[in-house]
Amino acid sequence: MTTEFKSPSKPNRYAPRFTQVATFLRAPLAETLDDVDIGLVGVPYDGGLTNRPGARHGPREVRNESSLMRMINHTSRLNPFELCRIADVGDVPFSEILIIESAMKEIQSFFTQLKAANVLPVSVGGDHSISLPILRSLATSGPVAMIHFDAHTDTWADFQGSKFHHGSPFRWAVEENLIDPKKTIQIGIRGAQNITDGWDYSIEKGMRVVFIEELLECGTQAIVEEARRVVGDSPVYLTFDVDGLDPVYAPGTGTPEIGGFSTAQALAMLKGLRGLNFIGGDVVEISPPFDVSGLTSLAGATILYEIVCLMAEGFGPATTQHTP
Amino acid sequence: MTTEFKSPSKPNRYAPRFTQVATFLRAPLAETLDDVDIGLVGVPYDGGLTNRPGARHGPREVRNESSLMRMINHTSRLNPFELCRIADVGDVPFSEILIIESAMKEIQSFFTQLKAANVLPVSVGGDHSISLPILRSLATSGPVAMIHFDAHTDTWADFQGSKFHHGSPFRWAVEENLIDPKKTIQIGIRGAQNITDGWDYSIEKGMRVVFIEELLECGTQAIVEEARRVVGDSPVYLTFDVDGLDPVYAPGTGTPEIGGFSTAQALAMLKGLRGLNFIGGDVVEISPPFDVSGLTSLAGATILYEIVCLMAEGFGPATTQHTP
Amino acid sequence: MTTEFKSPSKPNRYAPRFTQVATFLRAPLAETLDDVDIGLVGVPYDGGLTNRPGARHGPREVRNESSLMRMINHTSRLNPFELCRIADVGDVPFSEILIIESAMKEIQSFFTQLKAANVLPVSVGGDHSISLPILRSLATSGPVAMIHFDAHTDTWADFQGSKFHHGSPFRWAVEENLIDPKKTIQIGIRGAQNITDGWDYSIEKGMRVVFIEELLECGTQAIVEEARRVVGDSPVYLTFDVDGLDPVYAPGTGTPEIGGFSTAQALAMLKGLRGLNFIGGDVVEISPPFDVSGLTSLAGATILYEIVCLMAEGFGPATTQHTP
Amino acid sequence: MTTEFKSPSKPNRYAPRFTQVATFLRAPLAETLDDVDIGLVGVPYDGGLTNRPGARHGPREVRNESSLMRMINHTSRLNPFELCRIADVGDVPFSEILIIESAMKEIQSFFTQLKAANVLPVSVGGDHSISLPILRSLATSGPVAMIHFDAHTDTWADFQGSKFHHGSPFRWAVEENLIDPKKTIQIGIRGAQNITDGWDYSIEKGMRVVFIEELLECGTQAIVEEARRVVGDSPVYLTFDVDGLDPVYAPGTGTPEIGGFSTAQALAMLKGLRGLNFIGGDVVEISPPFDVSGLTSLAGATILYEIVCLMAEGFGPATTQHTP
Amino acid sequence: MTTEFKSPSKPNRYAPRFTQVATFLRAPLAETLDDVDIGLVGVPYDGGLTNRPGARHGPREVRNESSLMRMINHTSRLNPFELCRIADVGDVPFSEILIIESAMKEIQSFFTQLKAANVLPVSVGGDHSISLPILRSLATSGPVAMIHFDAHTDTWADFQGSKFHHGSPFRWAVEENLIDPKKTIQIGIRGAQNITDGWDYSIEKGMRVVFIEELLECGTQAIVEEARRVVGDSPVYLTFDVDGLDPVYAPGTGTPEIGGFSTAQALAMLKGLRGLNFIGGDVVEISPPFDVSGLTSLAGATILYEIVCLMAEGFGPATTQHTP
Amino acid sequence: MTTEFKSPSKPNRYAPRFTQVATFLRAPLAETLDDVDIGLVGVPYDGGLTNRPGARHGPREVRNESSLMRMINHTSRLNPFELCRIADVGDVPFSEILIIESAMKEIQSFFTQLKAANVLPVSVGGDHSISLPILRSLATSGPVAMIHFDAHTDTWADFQGSKFHHGSPFRWAVEENLIDPKKTIQIGIRGAQNITDGWDYSIEKGMRVVFIEELLECGTQAIVEEARRVVGDSPVYLTFDVDGLDPVYAPGTGTPEIGGFSTAQALAMLKGLRGLNFIGGDVVEISPPFDVSGLTSLAGATILYEIVCLMAEGFGPATTQHTP
Repeated sequence: MTTEFKSPSKPNRYAPRFTQVATFLRAPLAETLDDVDIGLVGVPYDGGLTNRPGARHGPREVRNESSLMRMINHTSRLNPFELCRIADVGDVPFSEILIIESAMKEIQSFFTQLKAANVLPVSVGGDHSISLPILRSLATSGPVAMIHFDAHTDTWADFQGSKFHHGSPFRWAVEENLIDPKKTIQIGIRGAQNITDGWDYSIEKGMRVVFIEELLECGTQAIVEEARRVVGDSPVYLTFDVDGLDPVYAPGTGTPEIGGFSTAQALAMLKGLRGLNFIGGDVVEISPPFDVSGLTSLAGATILYEIVCLMAEGFGPATTQHTP
Repeated sequence: MTTEFKSPSKPNRYAPRFTQVATFLRAPLAETLDDVDIGLVGVPYDGGLTNRPGARHGPREVRNESSLMRMINHTSRLNPFELCRIADVGDVPFSEILIIESAMKEIQSFFTQLKAANVLPVSVGGDHSISLPILRSLATSGPVAMIHFDAHTDTWADFQGSKFHHGSPFRWAVEENLIDPKKTIQIGIRGAQNITDGWDYSIEKGMRVVFIEELLECGTQAIVEEARRVVGDSPVYLTFDVDGLDPVYAPGTGTPEIGGFSTAQALAMLKGLRGLNFIGGDVVEISPPFDVSGLTSLAGATILYEIVCLMAEGFGPATTQHTP
Repeated sequence: MTTEFKSPSKPNRYAPRFTQVATFLRAPLAETLDDVDIGLVGVPYDGGLTNRPGARHGPREVRNESSLMRMINHTSRLNPFELCRIADVGDVPFSEILIIESAMKEIQSFFTQLKAANVLPVSVGGDHSISLPILRSLATSGPVAMIHFDAHTDTWADFQGSKFHHGSPFRWAVEENLIDPKKTIQIGIRGAQNITDGWDYSIEKGMRVVFIEELLECGTQAIVEEARRVVGDSPVYLTFDVDGLDPVYAPGTGTPEIGGFSTAQALAMLKGLRGLNFIGGDVVEISPPFDVSGLTSLAGATILYEIVCLMAEGFGPATTQHTP
Repeated sequence: MTTEFKSPSKPNRYAPRFTQVATFLRAPLAETLDDVDIGLVGVPYDGGLTNRPGARHGPREVRNESSLMRMINHTSRLNPFELCRIADVGDVPFSEILIIESAMKEIQSFFTQLKAANVLPVSVGGDHSISLPILRSLATSGPVAMIHFDAHTDTWADFQGSKFHHGSPFRWAVEENLIDPKKTIQIGIRGAQNITDGWDYSIEKGMRVVFIEELLECGTQAIVEEARRVVGDSPVYLTFDVDGLDPVYAPGTGTPEIGGFSTAQALAMLKGLRGLNFIGGDVVEISPPFDVSGLTSLAGATILYEIVCLMAEGFGPATTQHTP
Repeated sequence: MTTEFKSPSKPNRYAPRFTQVATFLRAPLAETLDDVDIGLVGVPYDGGLTNRPGARHGPREVRNESSLMRMINHTSRLNPFELCRIADVGDVPFSEILIIESAMKEIQSFFTQLKAANVLPVSVGGDHSISLPILRSLATSGPVAMIHFDAHTDTWADFQGSKFHHGSPFRWAVEENLIDPKKTIQIGIRGAQNITDGWDYSIEKGMRVVFIEELLECGTQAIVEEARRVVGDSPVYLTFDVDGLDPVYAPGTGTPEIGGFSTAQALAMLKGLRGLNFIGGDVVEISPPFDVSGLTSLAGATILYEIVCLMAEGFGPATTQHTP
Repeated sequence: MTTEFKSPSKPNRYAPRFTQVATFLRAPLAETLDDVDIGLVGVPYDGGLTNRPGARHGPREVRNESSLMRMINHTSRLNPFELCRIADVGDVPFSEILIIESAMKEIQSFFTQLKAANVLPVSVGGDHSISLPILRSLATSGPVAMIHFDAHTDTWADFQGSKFHHGSPFRWAVEENLIDPKKTIQIGIRGAQNITDGWDYSIEKGMRVVFIEELLECGTQAIVEEARRVVGDSPVYLTFDVDGLDPVYAPGTGTPEIGGFSTAQALAMLKGLRGLNFIGGDVVEISPPFDVSGLTSLAGATILYEIVCLMAEGFGPATTQHTP
């Protein structure tokens, strides 16, 4: 007998928010990749952290806090779920997660599979080391532009025996010709360092480094304009490390630095980036064990939603296809 | 034998703050309503919530954090407790709290009793559904003006089988002619929605809806002026949903939305409303189980104090009576 | 193009535990009810609570802590997932959750659907009021036996205007002839009461009431034997209110009573019930907002697993069918 | 006009538990001492602590958790509130709380006032130094017997410049002839010490010192019998330091020592002391800032209730007066 | 045999941050005072608190969060550890900590020892009462200037029997001619008071009192200029009470007042004070038991670092000596 | 000038507990290894975890909670600090911590250095993978006996690409001939598993595996006797995984399993092992980010103390040397 049972893998966004299996933005779980335009991906990897751990639990808790997410953006009045097909495609499956080089390859492999299926990825980390294998899978036709929110430039070199860690992804992304440093902007940089190598590398390679003082003095509108100028109409990757936010907005992170920007400022900047040619994005470094009352995961879920809105617009009525 | 015992129902505001039975703003507990000008009321009802529960514990924790409250306002230098008689009149007594329609009636009945005794109420919720029965008891001579701080317009329609819930009070307040939408301003609105019905209703009825972007761009002074313009010298009700604040200032709430205003901005706006003809007020949606370190309850207690200051001025030396 | 993508609705139990979408016991999400023997059900309803809320978030957090669950029972060495087909069938879908009588009907309706599909339900609450509609759906062929772990008899009468609440389900279950009080045992009862009505009702109707002192004095083995004697070989429902546990083992609950039994004692009792004719079970009253470090949800997930083990044995090699 | 308003200083024990102003055991607040048999007193003093602070907040939080308390004892079936008149008489009023010697005098003075009014006190601390001034007010007719639950003997000498601190009250109580060491039993002693002076003092003076190993080996029944033997029918004071409990039952305390007794064992011992000639009691060292989910305050409230039950029996039908 | 063992009292700043014994700013522990220019001192005293306790645990937790600190300032690009010799000189040793007057003398004595050894102190409290004995040890050649961040003026008189408490240090510092009120600026003042005595005292004595409204309206740059004007080139002491920060940035404190300044604003002000003639500084009122996720201690550690940077510049290449 | 300054690297055990730099058991920090009999070592490594992270923060927090530790054991009345020279020798210094094989070697190298200096190590982890390199450094003269408290046998094989992880150390210790399985006892084993390989390995190799049911049924005394029988007078290593404790006693751990033993039972077992020939010990798997109110770290610190007591007795008056 077949009953009219509704599978829990197809969440109902109008149901009470505390009900149902938790998926990213309450999107359905993908059964295949065939009918997915934007894939929401969890990358529960934190083997690249150098301080407080826990980002491995980030995807789980962002899914949880996603219950608070709804569909129609209050500023653009657009509903991304009407513009394109969005699904939770699950977490990167790992089989050698304890070996950092293997984990990097497994991440790259999963995103290569998404790209082959023509799925644009928006990811939830995981530590920032995951952005390198993601970029390796996406930037196969030459370096892309990048908009990077963070307290740190993440362009440092080796640490504690490993080339790969959460402070180095964008140094190797430059070296491997995955991102164009001259089309890269880093926003929110701050905090003391033991050496200046990372700051120096970013600047010497031509990245536009916006230290926090510049942002607080000039305001979000000026930074938005600068970001648009830097990336132009190139394919662009957006990466958002939640430690760019002040620690009160993101206590659940591994390397907090006081004096950051607020979620209101983050939203103002993200909302200012409409119309760019996004090929993917991520929000990383959410560490639930250090979070309080879900604040960081809720911020992460909302940033995820705003990135999805930016990318979904490319699928709008007037747009019949996207070519990243 | 009668000793010189001082009853614990008469707290001493100069005692160490962590001592004594907790009452709102360390006010005495009312023995009768005869000698009360402003009554501080707890409404521990959260049956109208649609997401995270716990607002039932709001009055209890605001009383606790009230220990940190003192008397003389640092900006106005007024002491409301010298201007009029202020008492904690206890919580609304419920006998059918599990039935939402009955609970609504029990709330209304208690506030009608206060009004009959000529007591101006300032309430601590509880969820936002409580404002409807309060308004039903107060607005008996025609619709009143309203100043409303919130992330949501709370003018949505039925939800999950009930007309009454924390997202609908002001729709029914308009429909029942309790508030005049053209003399109503809603401040801090934001966050995605699944349908636009609430936003549309507020605007179509003529409410002045201040989305958060307008507040952050124009500043609190401009919004204060707009609020004063909207309500004029009409009798006005002030309702403050703590989710209007950014979640870092009010993590203990049911439907947090990132990117809100700060407590500093809230205080600037409240302090700008001196001299209006307030007939009552409330602070709602404080959910202690989701709070951290008492932050939300402390914010609630301070907002309660500022509302009381606004209302007590109507009892000042030059003012011999108030006519709501 | 069809890739070899593995849907996130089919969790891999060998994957790192912090990865993947959270389902009960890491079971797959049911697409239909056709191939399910035991259905794991969430009932996120807490409108029947009389004190601290939050049980609505129970299913979500038990799914989360389920990541720690594995398959082979260390005492029986049985793997329930090999004995029968077990799936997470999602949460009861509600459309009138704010009205307690309607919610009761919606719960009953979902379980009736499961029964029609020949699925044995094991549920995660939610408050204890949910057991009544579950029993209404299951006990359609006459009253069943019941083993009930709890600090309270839950046989009280009306409260605050409602017949239905978390303190009354088993009074109405007796009155409606759903359970046979003479084949019912209540284990762990304790804590002061304002009236003795509930205690009296249970005893007068013939339930075997095991106050905590008896359990602590006689030991778990004696109680197991008594329980087996009481229920005999009747079809039996098992209901586990986590407030039967001492509050240190289950701080996340609505009406904690100190001096309860431990998880070790709970496991000893549950493991002693092998071979009974279970027709369903539930674990209820887990309130994550009051929990610490996931302790209560982890206990709930493990109790869920043990109940599933008890029921799966009925599907073992020697057993070709079950007839509840 | 006088309305039929019910003052919040008279809580209704049948009201929903999360409502109303918080008082000890939901007892009414005393207006005078004239009609009080047992006075529940808060002593929010923690100036005698040597390690983690916070016991000053103990009375506040025990009042909060008292909402969970009800009236009829499940083992004795007695309702203490029917046996005698019980009221919350508030906190000791302090005017020189920063000076430890002055604070001791202020505590003594308040309890002397209670004694003059023929009110038997049951107190909630505060740190253990408060028991000394309480005993000074009570033991005016010669030394009393004492039953003392604790991890520490609290018979140490001076510490950090002060004779008075939470480790010394019972040394001075012996020296001042307030307690009879030969009629004193200390139960639950454990934990390493830097010197053995306190242990030695207790034993040399003839106290019956029950180290935790003896309790765990012999069981609560044996200890109850020993306690009854030691105190005989002398007037007896009962003092319960929550650090006697294992830290999992009382994490919110200043000097936790692992390996203690459980709340179930504590209740078994307390319930075994019925019929003794109690002249007062206290529960101390509850430090809410270190508590989790209210566990320690809930334990404290329940212990308070059990002590009240023990004392109320002296006012029972067969008993027409008590003479401490 | 002597191995090449590296003592844990010499932390390695390049080691993973979660490793090693915790010292202030990961500085080495002083073996003597001979080779120390700036001494980082813990003053774990909180006997002067009037409300929530816990500041005694401040030094411990600031040492813990100091693991996150690094060396090179991102705005000045200076490394204070290269400019002078900085060491953790431990906590003030107390032998009469329970007697407030004795404790004040013990603090003074330790700082006098530091001054004799020509060590500039930067301290971590403890409550604000500690600044008085520190100033007594430092201002031996006449009154000094002071820059004071706080929500309260701390110029109140006696409280609860004691002249010394955390609300009075700067009244006595003026009376004892330790600070020059005309060269003193107090920044961030706010919150209701029961009497106006402290506000009045500060203003009458000529202190520059910057209420929070002035700071928020004029901006940090204007306040920096005003501070520089007030103190001129006099020897200046910097005292930072974390309750000057908004409670969301410093929840772990004893007397939080909503509506304060942010850490970003605090850093902007501190960084604006370069080149002044600092003779010492402190950061006080960090209460870890009320903190969440280490936010307050992390803010305290970073403020400590910035004060150290300000003071280390006096030891720079062009500067061969300092004369406080 | 040389002052009589007392270095903070030499903590004073009689000082108030919340003061001073935190070291293990308040022992002095070693300047060299020359004068150390027992070295307390931190091993802040958690790269071998398979689930919840955070054990890297274990040494830090055990040092913090060590402030509560004192010297004289209440059962043996011995003071280990008088029997031998005990020092905190710091944390293992890592330079390649991100590469699991390198980290294993770095741990082994540090312990080899200790052994060369004739220092007996007692370690605080870190995850359980650290016991393998410790054993490699200690068991250089043939396999040793082992007493192992844990919920898991930790004799599983490879996981996620690595031979080394926290579930495998004792399989390789057997294979490498470091421990003699026939002289090994594992106590507290429980919890479901996905495969039985680890259980099977332990049993097949001849280890004495005490599942939790046996411990709870037979009592701690019987297990102590069995442990003494198994290890005889061989050199023995003691390893204590805090997840052997029930999760309420050790919530801060990576793979909690409900139904474990209590701290009282743990202490009873440890205290029963006096007089054995211990060559080292460890307490592992303390994960502070998941801890509540320091319970797990306090348990860890006390277990550390008890292990030190066991080992210090070998240095007692009658014993002139130890030969592991």
